[in-house]
Amino acid sequence: MAQDKKLVESITPMDTDFAQWYTDVVKKADLVDYSSVKGCMIYRPYGYAIWEIIQKILDAKFKETGHENVYMPLFIPESLLNKEKDHVEGFAPEVAWVTLGGNEPLTEKLCVRPTSETLFCEHYANIITSWRDLPKLYNQWCSVVRWEKTTRPFLRTREFLWQEGHTMHATAEEAQEETLRMLNLYADFCEQELAIPVIRGPKTESDKFAGAVATYAIEALMHDGKALQAGTSHYFGDGFARAFGIQYTDKNNTLHYPHQTSWGVTTRLIGAIIMTHGDDSGLVLPPAVAPIQVVIVPVAQHKEGVLEKAEELRGRLMAAGFRVKLDDSDNSAGWKYAEYEMKGVPVRLEIGPRDIESNQCVLVARHDRKKDFVSLDTLEEAVKEKLEAVRLGLWEKAKENRDRRTSECETMEEIRHTLDEKGDGFILAKWCGSPECEEKVKAETGVGSRCIPFRQDKRAGVCVCCGKPAATTVLWAKAY
Amino acid sequence: MAQDKKLVESITPMDTDFAQWYTDVVKKADLVDYSSVKGCMIYRPYGYAIWEIIQKILDAKFKETGHENVYMPLFIPESLLNKEKDHVEGFAPEVAWVTLGGNEPLTEKLCVRPTSETLFCEHYANIITSWRDLPKLYNQWCSVVRWEKTTRPFLRTREFLWQEGHTMHATAEEAQEETLRMLNLYADFCEQELAIPVIRGPKTESDKFAGAVATYAIEALMHDGKALQAGTSHYFGDGFARAFGIQYTDKNNTLHYPHQTSWGVTTRLIGAIIMTHGDDSGLVLPPAVAPIQVVIVPVAQHKEGVLEKAEELRGRLMAAGFRVKLDDSDNSAGWKYAEYEMKGVPVRLEIGPRDIESNQCVLVARHDRKKDFVSLDTLEEAVKEKLEAVRLGLWEKAKENRDRRTSECETMEEIRHTLDEKGDGFILAKWCGSPECEEKVKAETGVGSRCIPFRQDKRAGVCVCCGKPAATTVLWAKAY
Repeated sequence: MAQDKKLVESITPMDTDFAQWYTDVVKKADLVDYSSVKGCMIYRPYGYAIWEIIQKILDAKFKETGHENVYMPLFIPESLLNKEKDHVEGFAPEVAWVTLGGNEPLTEKLCVRPTSETLFCEHYANIITSWRDLPKLYNQWCSVVRWEKTTRPFLRTREFLWQEGHTMHATAEEAQEETLRMLNLYADFCEQELAIPVIRGPKTESDKFAGAVATYAIEALMHDGKALQAGTSHYFGDGFARAFGIQYTDKNNTLHYPHQTSWGVTTRLIGAIIMTHGDDSGLVLPPAVAPIQVVIVPVAQHKEGVLEKAEELRGRLMAAGFRVKLDDSDNSAGWKYAEYEMKGVPVRLEIGPRDIESNQCVLVARHDRKKDFVSLDTLEEAVKEKLEAVRLGLWEKAKENRDRRTSECETMEEIRHTLDEKGDGFILAKWCGSPECEEKVKAETGVGSRCIPFRQDKRAGVCVCCGKPAATTVLWAKAY
Repeated sequence: MAQDKKLVESITPMDTDFAQWYTDVVKKADLVDYSSVKGCMIYRPYGYAIWEIIQKILDAKFKETGHENVYMPLFIPESLLNKEKDHVEGFAPEVAWVTLGGNEPLTEKLCVRPTSETLFCEHYANIITSWRDLPKLYNQWCSVVRWEKTTRPFLRTREFLWQEGHTMHATAEEAQEETLRMLNLYADFCEQELAIPVIRGPKTESDKFAGAVATYAIEALMHDGKALQAGTSHYFGDGFARAFGIQYTDKNNTLHYPHQTSWGVTTRLIGAIIMTHGDDSGLVLPPAVAPIQVVIVPVAQHKEGVLEKAEELRGRLMAAGFRVKLDDSDNSAGWKYAEYEMKGVPVRLEIGPRDIESNQCVLVARHDRKKDFVSLDTLEEAVKEKLEAVRLGLWEKAKENRDRRTSECETMEEIRHTLDEKGDGFILAKWCGSPECEEKVKAETGVGSRCIPFRQDKRAGVCVCCGKPAATTVLWAKAY
């Protein structure tokens, strides 16, 4: 028995303290650890494996849509960061600066990249000269640094992992198309693979990326009713191209500035998965990104033939392309159930002497604990169906939570009342377009604008704040 | 015709100026670009694609041997770096320091990781308590920073990409086995996939990694006769474990310090590929890591049916698992030949109207330009054989160069004479083991000790420097 092995300790229930529940899950599911580097985190093997799978899926999608990976320097000289006025204003206050190299003061300080627009632009200025060089569709997987004051694993850390796409196009139309193509790629990935419903739309002016003409986001609603921005895609126009002197000649030998985009998702997505699907037993992972999709737990494994059969099933499922783990350790079956529930493994396969006699096994879904007895003859098919059932189950539960927590409001009072009655959630409310009203809604009700959903309620209406005519419906929420 | 497209410019011949030839190749083959970040480089899509393939192959090998990937913070607080005395002495002089975060001075400066032993050890102290927690077999893919004074793309840059394995074991024997297992994994990868012959062995005391008990290396010989260290594997004993207070209880509840290894390869491997296989037409890539293994160049592509057939062959070869590019641009065939030779594509497939009539195509190997007319009926098989012939051809050429440039010497005078007569190369010479003689050999002949090859000449002999009895043969060379 497991005398040396830690017992699975219980975690704080979600409804008691959601923030503490989150912290418990990321630690107990072995996703992260803390280090003496304040505000940074250690991605442990199980947490990093989720990111590796996300990378693999997205990277294939980027390459299918013609993008190429590059790697830019980690550092940005101060003068380079300063080249685009809005950009530096947005980022300078939150960067880390290298001032010493090899114990000597640097003549120019270097910031650790918070994002790499300036580096890409400097490079593009070198390599773009003709219409033949366009489009340039580059992407980079790396870590970036932003000197945040308060941090939480996956959601906000001083260093985080992400990808940043940076593209250059001959025309504004092409660049705008790219911006939306990548937004939709992110949205489809979230909805189809992560089972997280999202709302797509542009950000308001006040919430745009530093230097962008337009910023689009996908917004998800967490279990506790707070919003989480799951991905962004920016259209820059030719502002950076002008600041960096990037020009190309068209077929008639006329000079033009190209049009630019950038887009990114981060390890925040793992935070979104935890807070969308998790429950009081721990993590619940969507099958597409689960490092272990099926855990095989032998029952009465000391009995003759049980471990051999379990090993045989593991081999069959791995050959069929599933990510499988057989836990034949000497921990009790009960301990194993709790451990892999904490780790969010979507499907547990139980096999014992009586199952073997009946040529069957038991499949248990993590999210609803539904048990199925399935014939070993058609195990691969049954596992495939069960994983699909998990995906659908997670999607429906997440969508139900979001829809239940989404309210349309016509007055400030109605927003306050809704938040009091139903708790946090998405508020759909009309807005006149003025930054003052946007600010006032946030100050007086606590919800900020998340995006202007593409799917608009077309009916005429008035601004929830000032009462003037308003055509735009905004999605409002408290946010991570 | 390609009026807009740059012509392929000629590069400096290797024998005229090898260093300039190298610089020309990395630029003209579109592997890298420079940026305003001094000493750092931009990995362009073609250069980065080589690294991605190296990563994919090695990562699979690491996972097969039980290793798991993690991600540690980018920064190391000064106090953490200082914990192991030898380690900090080795690295402190060449690190970059972050001293400002969000425009405020940090209370403790942070170095940008030059290597992550200290971070791994701090983490291991948290998660290792029992024999059940061992071994820990972790690896990390990331970039590291060392503030070098003189830099060259791939060979020595202030930031470079690498992987660093860090493992902890219950016993010294297990850790030593791991050290050699990973050294041999690297060596096999270099020899079998990169077609680069290497010599394996421990470094001398003076050349060990900072804090290691023993450092092992694989040494390759470049085309110009200089050595390049292609990978290292270190055995640490329990020195770091003691410094960081990492202990585990065995089955009898007795406390022990675990034993540690680390091992790494870097983007230097790309430099090794360039300088081992390249020629006066540019890069020559081993098929295993070539982003494009076969480039299809249609001949008289305006003629009916040529492009359709070329496209059909592309589809067939891609379906067979080859990395293929069809260049149907309006550049001339001659331009295309030169372009893909510069980029080192191992095999060129030419297909024109007459070939189509004869149901054949032409395969041309990059390294020896040998042409084969092959039947389209068995194209996949022919391409597979041709790529294997390229691999073997590269291996034999590299091995022939190395063997020709390897000399056994018994006196200092003989070393000097050999270097004068044959040019740079590997020198095998006996050594008494004293650091003074090692230093003197270098000072007086220019060659430094590279490693003590596992394959030793067992005959008795005397130190090449002091003439005292010496049982050890050392590999000496000038090195990158």
